[in-house]
Order: sequence, then structure tokens, then C-alpha cells
Amino acid sequence: MATRIGIGLLGLGTVGGGVAEILQTPDGRHPLVADLDLVRVAVRDLNRPRPVELPADCLTTNPEAVVDDPNVHVVVEVMGGIEPARTLIMRAIAAGKSVVTANKAVIARHGEEIAAAAASAGVYVLIEAAVGGGIPIIEPLKQSLGGNRIQRVSGIINGTTNYILSRMAQEGADYDAVLRDAQELGYAEADPAADVDGLDAADKIAILAGLAFGGPIPRGGIPTDGISSLQSRDVDYATQLDYGVKLLAVAERADNTDTDNADRDGGPSLPLAVRVQPTLVPLDHPLAGVHGVNNAILVEGDPIGRVMFYGPGAGAGPTASAVVADILNIAGIQQLNDTDGQLDPLLAASSWRACHLVESSAIRQRNYLRFHTDDTPGVIGQIGTSFGDHGVSIQSIVQFDASDAGAEIVVITHEVSNGNLDKALAAITARPEIRGIAAHLGCL
Amino acid sequence: MATRIGIGLLGLGTVGGGVAEILQTPDGRHPLVADLDLVRVAVRDLNRPRPVELPADCLTTNPEAVVDDPNVHVVVEVMGGIEPARTLIMRAIAAGKSVVTANKAVIARHGEEIAAAAASAGVYVLIEAAVGGGIPIIEPLKQSLGGNRIQRVSGIINGTTNYILSRMAQEGADYDAVLRDAQELGYAEADPAADVDGLDAADKIAILAGLAFGGPIPRGGIPTDGISSLQSRDVDYATQLDYGVKLLAVAERADNTDTDNADRDGGPSLPLAVRVQPTLVPLDHPLAGVHGVNNAILVEGDPIGRVMFYGPGAGAGPTASAVVADILNIAGIQQLNDTDGQLDPLLAASSWRACHLVESSAIRQRNYLRFHTDDTPGVIGQIGTSFGDHGVSIQSIVQFDASDAGAEIVVITHEVSNGNLDKALAAITARPEIRGIAAHLGCL
Repeated sequence: MATRIGIGLLGLGTVGGGVAEILQTPDGRHPLVADLDLVRVAVRDLNRPRPVELPADCLTTNPEAVVDDPNVHVVVEVMGGIEPARTLIMRAIAAGKSVVTANKAVIARHGEEIAAAAASAGVYVLIEAAVGGGIPIIEPLKQSLGGNRIQRVSGIINGTTNYILSRMAQEGADYDAVLRDAQELGYAEADPAADVDGLDAADKIAILAGLAFGGPIPRGGIPTDGISSLQSRDVDYATQLDYGVKLLAVAERADNTDTDNADRDGGPSLPLAVRVQPTLVPLDHPLAGVHGVNNAILVEGDPIGRVMFYGPGAGAGPTASAVVADILNIAGIQQLNDTDGQLDPLLAASSWRACHLVESSAIRQRNYLRFHTDDTPGVIGQIGTSFGDHGVSIQSIVQFDASDAGAEIVVITHEVSNGNLDKALAAITARPEIRGIAAHLGCL
Repeated sequence: MATRIGIGLLGLGTVGGGVAEILQTPDGRHPLVADLDLVRVAVRDLNRPRPVELPADCLTTNPEAVVDDPNVHVVVEVMGGIEPARTLIMRAIAAGKSVVTANKAVIARHGEEIAAAAASAGVYVLIEAAVGGGIPIIEPLKQSLGGNRIQRVSGIINGTTNYILSRMAQEGADYDAVLRDAQELGYAEADPAADVDGLDAADKIAILAGLAFGGPIPRGGIPTDGISSLQSRDVDYATQLDYGVKLLAVAERADNTDTDNADRDGGPSLPLAVRVQPTLVPLDHPLAGVHGVNNAILVEGDPIGRVMFYGPGAGAGPTASAVVADILNIAGIQQLNDTDGQLDPLLAASSWRACHLVESSAIRQRNYLRFHTDDTPGVIGQIGTSFGDHGVSIQSIVQFDASDAGAEIVVITHEVSNGNLDKALAAITARPEIRGIAAHLGCL
């Protein structure tokens, strides 16, 4: 006889509505869905029209009433924002209730506090919907890749910017024009800063890195470049050089050795290089084919090699699918006999080692640089020489668009530390023929 | 205090060696790996050199001794083949031990019997490594997509044939030449039949469909075409028409309605169309970019839309990663207090509805057809008319390669049932100008 599970929903917007719809139409879904009862739903306005019909006594404007309802066993937080979401999550945990949340901002900033409270209360806080929309990525990282030493997690994890970049590449259009269009179509918010400045992607890579490497990631320390100053001519030059431009979030081991110098008993902390930036991706790379609002996350480790997870990065249906996945996981565990506050360590995903971020100057990567220069002979040679003098190895230098207004010289470097690159760039921009660095992007 | 888990390994070949290596080097992996003890290993020959060092008393040539060892809690079957693997799996279940297996042949043929025994013994039989090598696909299907009504599972799930097809497309080479090369490089077996005839892919799609749709799939009823009679000119024509050719395994609902006519209480059985065949994939489709020995599985459902899982489809490391994932899942659950024979229904993944395969003639799909014809005027018109007379709608007809030896006419149809297509083809081949059907492939 299956245990029935009472669900309390905080928020009935796009995602909350999608979750309610799944719970109300269990036919043809996993039979455990039919064991879930949507008991109580907190909304902002009782009289607003809803995408789903709910009994009137199910709705309340008081989210605490949902958390405190004794018939609610699992609290689903899909209201967004830091507060009151964080306080409500903590209240649910204190009441001994497991939590499912799609709130990447809260988890990226308060994940450690929340995880500690959940562990001591013996409840789960599951976050599949916080990253990658419907794509199963949190659960595979927690439950399917544990035998690996993860080397790198990277991906396209913001649908809005990928939509904008895809259209810029296809149409040769300017950022501003595509952004306005995306706003009209509902793919970008009226205030697009969290997306286009890379903050949303930084939240998400902090969460992914924490799971992949087993320790909390200081969200504030992640170098983050968005796409708002990206120029269409760089997208165009990249295309001519057989690259796509993607807003890439990357987290990788930065110990530069094959041995693991961290251990579970409190050994040295694992150094990680984490960043978000517009990045050139070779056209034959699996991430280059990810267009529009789709997301994809690439995980590299030993011995698995390279696996990729691809799908819709946002939207009511996909995100609701991820929320329900988490609810089902909790419901599945609750079919077991009294587990007496014990947690499945894979599903709970508590930290098991310390991680720290290396300085931005210590991050090693390939780079795309566009210089604005005088159109005089020898400029390419001077740039090449300056890079060489500072130990920066170059893959290609190409001159685009020379005219009376000057020349555009694009350089793609081999892998180099940001610190060494900066020294080379200081020497190059000190030359009188060099008018400035017009663009600096990452490059895979 | 973590529970220690004793592991017994049946087989120490490529995959078994990879598993042993992970278990012996837990540093930097999930800390649960360190709680796994490799207790006993069954090998064929005690004196063969091994990729890993094991204590001599750990090895035995008697697999039953591994299964029966009271210190072995989880039996890992990586010996392959139907027998004695099946009997040993059943013996482990009867002894109340959970089983991890990479054996798709056993699971595709005896999965129902094994699942029933496991359910009644209250143990898990986990099979992540049976499909897609290292790619997490079994677990996401079981644990992350349960809120969805799955519409279709399709994919490239045989690395050997994808390697051969990738090289045929890149080099314009013949099947026989590439196969020989693949055999020399170790990408194809000396007897390649299971791979090139599509049998391995049929095993795997039966397993995926069973999980995606919730009911056992009759393995014997899956129409299966391999690549051994594929001609390089069809790969070439496909390329000219902007398609790649992949050995695709597809399982999809065939109820042709949006409502779900199956239910968990024994309602009507869900009709499925399942098949394996060489298939044209449009170059902008996510599966078209999957090259070499990589695999990818696309899952389509409501409300998630379309998600894809991509990665190495074979190899010691990736497959060992999947085996260890399963071991960790069992170890994670065993950290919970006495569950008294109760199983997590998501992880156990028992069947919850009946499924049946529709007749091959009822399968609906797009098709690629190459006709060998006389090079006379009007042949294209006659073919087009005959298709139209039988209700087969055509996307394109293109004539390639006309000469005294005749003409090659390639037709791509819109979606049509195999039954209607066959009637049209009978009418077309009855015409005197038509010398024969030189190729018939699927088309996405």
C-alpha cells in the first residue's frame, strides 16, 4: 500500500501552474504521481485567473500556512527571489519537511546554510529545477557520476542569452535589436540584467560545481562577464574563423596535476577555476550545436570521459517536469519503512570536501582578442612579438577590415593564465600603433 | 557511521577491470566509494595477467562462490552472454542480494523474470551500464522523467555501427573496407553480427522502451535492420540531400491520439511502434552531430519537450562509471535504517502498465527509397503518380546518376504507414521501367 504524500506549493505562477497541472493529471505518468496530493497552495492574489482549477479552500495568501499545514509533507518553493523564499525554506526544514525548490538564487547564496539545516533535520532539499530547466543534470551529478573524478563542468545554462546569441549569429543582428525583440517575445525580462550580465549563469555554475566537486562554492568570487557589450562584429569574425559564440559557464579543477590533493578527512582544499564569459566554441564541439533557448551541460571526468546533457533550459513544462522529478524522488524514498531520520547520502548530496576558487589571474584558458590598431605595416608582427616576449603562445592572427579608420586584428591564443595574458596586453596596448582592445572573449 | 558494502565481481575483463580500478582508488571520488569493499572476484583463468592487482584469496574460478560468499552484499555481473550470467543473477536474487549488471542481452530477454524475482526478494537489479555505456540514461528515465508522458525514445545506441557510418560518411568509403578497419582497431568484434545486424541496438531499445513506457517489451517482436547491406552511395546521396545516415533505434507511442488509453489498474495495453534501422537524420537535428563511437539518446515527452543524453557508448572507463553508479545507488539506500524488504519504487522500476508492439505494417514513418530504373523520360512522374494513387505523400524526388546503365531515383516520403507504403511499392515495382528497389531506409 503506497504512502500518500501531501504537497504544499509556494507560488502558482508559470512553474507552479505547470506543477499543479502534472499533479492533477496523473494518467500515463509514473504511478507514484497519483500518490501525490496537492494539499495547499500559496498565491499572491486569490482572485487572479489561474491556468489550473483548484478547490477554493486549497488556496491561501499566507505561505506560512502552507508550510505549517500538518497535511503538507513536502514543500515546493516556486515563488522565486531571495526573501521570503529563504525563510520559508528554512521554516519547512525546521518543521521536518523535505523541500523542492527551483530557486537558483537562494541555493547559490544560501545553499550551505540550507544544506546544514536539512542534514540536521534529516530532510531533503532537492533542486533539479534550479539549473537547466527540464534537463536532468542535478540528479545525474549526484547519483550517476559519483564513481568519477570530475575534471570540468561547463555549459550553456542561460536560455535568454543563448537565444540572443543564436539570433545574432544567424541574422548578423546587433545585440540591442535582438534583446528588444526577445523582450517582446517573452524570452527576456523587462529588466534583463540577471540574464545578460551573466549573474543567473553564475548562480547556476556555482550550484553545479558544488555538486560536481563535492564542496560549497563561494558564489561571490566567480568572475562574470555577460553579453551586453558583445558586438555583432565579434560574432561575425568568430563565424568566419569557424567558431560560434556562447555564454559559457565553466568550473574546472585548477590543481594542474593528475593527483587529487583533497581528501574527505579535511585535507587540502581543492582549487577550482570558475567563470562565466562569452566564449568562442569550435563549430564541431558538441556545445556549438545548442541553439535558441536550449541549454546543455558537459561533464568531463575520469574514467567516464565526456558526457553531455541537452534540452529546454526554461519554460513552464520543462521546469515543472524537473520539480515533479524531485517530488517523486522524495515520495519514492518515503515508500521505505521508517528511515528514522537517516538520509540517502547520494540524494542528500552533502559536501564531502573543501573547495576554493583560484584568483582570476591564475585561471588558464584560450582567448579571443580583437585589437583596434593603426593600419600600418608590421602591426601584426609587433603584436605577435609582444605576445611571444611574454610567453603567450598564439594559434592565429588575422587582420579584418583595414581602412583609413584603422585595422581590426583578431588574435586567438593557446592556453595561458590570465595573469600572463594581462602582462602581454599591457605591453601591447602601450605601443603607439595599438589604439585599444576592442574585445576580449574566452575560447574553447 | 557508514555501512560497509561488500562487492562481488563476476568477470574481470575490460569492464570488470575498470570497476575494480575505481573501487581500489577511491580518492577524489564520491566518499561512498571508500565504503565499498571488493570482496571476491570470479575469473576464468587465475593465472592470466590482470590490469589491476588483487589479493590472491580474492580471486576464484567459481562464480557461485562469489554469489554465495556471505561477505558479498552486492553482486556485479560483467561477464556477458546469456548463460551462466542469467542463472547467477537469479541465484544472487534468491540469496537476497542486489545485482548490478551491464548485460543487455540477459535483461532484454529475461528482464521480466529477473524483475519479478527481485521484487519478491526485495532487492534491486540495476542496469545503467547495459545501455549507452557511461551515459546516465537508465537512471534519468527511472528517476528524473517520471512526471512526463513519454512520447518517444530514440537514439544512436550502438557505438560500432556509428563508428562505421561516421567513417563511411567522412571518407565516402565502402562498408566492407571500414568494417575491416574497425575490426583491426578493436571497434568491431571478429564476428560483428550482433552490432552490424542491429541486434545489440534492438536489445537496448527494448530496455529503454520498457523503462520509458512502464511495461515489458517483447524483444522478439522488434523489426530490426542492420547496416551490413548499406551502400556507400546511399550515404553519399543522403549527404547531398543534407542528411546524415545513422543506425537509429526508435520506440514511440502508436496510439495516434493525445489521450492516454492505458491505466495502472490493468486498462488497455499501450500500443508502441519500436524498430531499429538505418535512418536519414537531418543535419540540423541533435542526433546528426553524434559521431564515432559516441551514443546519444533523445527522450520526448509531455511536458518536458525534448532532452538528449550524449556520451561515450562503450569502453572500459565509461562502462565502469555506469556500473559504479549503480553500486553507489544501492550503497546509498543501504545507509538508511532497516527498510525491511521495502524498495524505492523509482529505483526498482517495476512495470506499471501493459505495452504491446503494433504490427510492422502499422508503424508510421518517413522513408528514403532509391529506385533503380530505366533512364527514360517520365519515370519520375510515374513514380510520383503511383505514390499519389496509394495515398503516399512525397517530400522530394531526385534523379541521381543517369546513364546507359539506367537511372537512380531517390524519393523521400512524408510520414506514412509501412502497410500503405508497401502497397505503393508493389505497384511501382510492377511497372516495366522500374528495375527494382535498391535501398529502403528510414528518415527523420
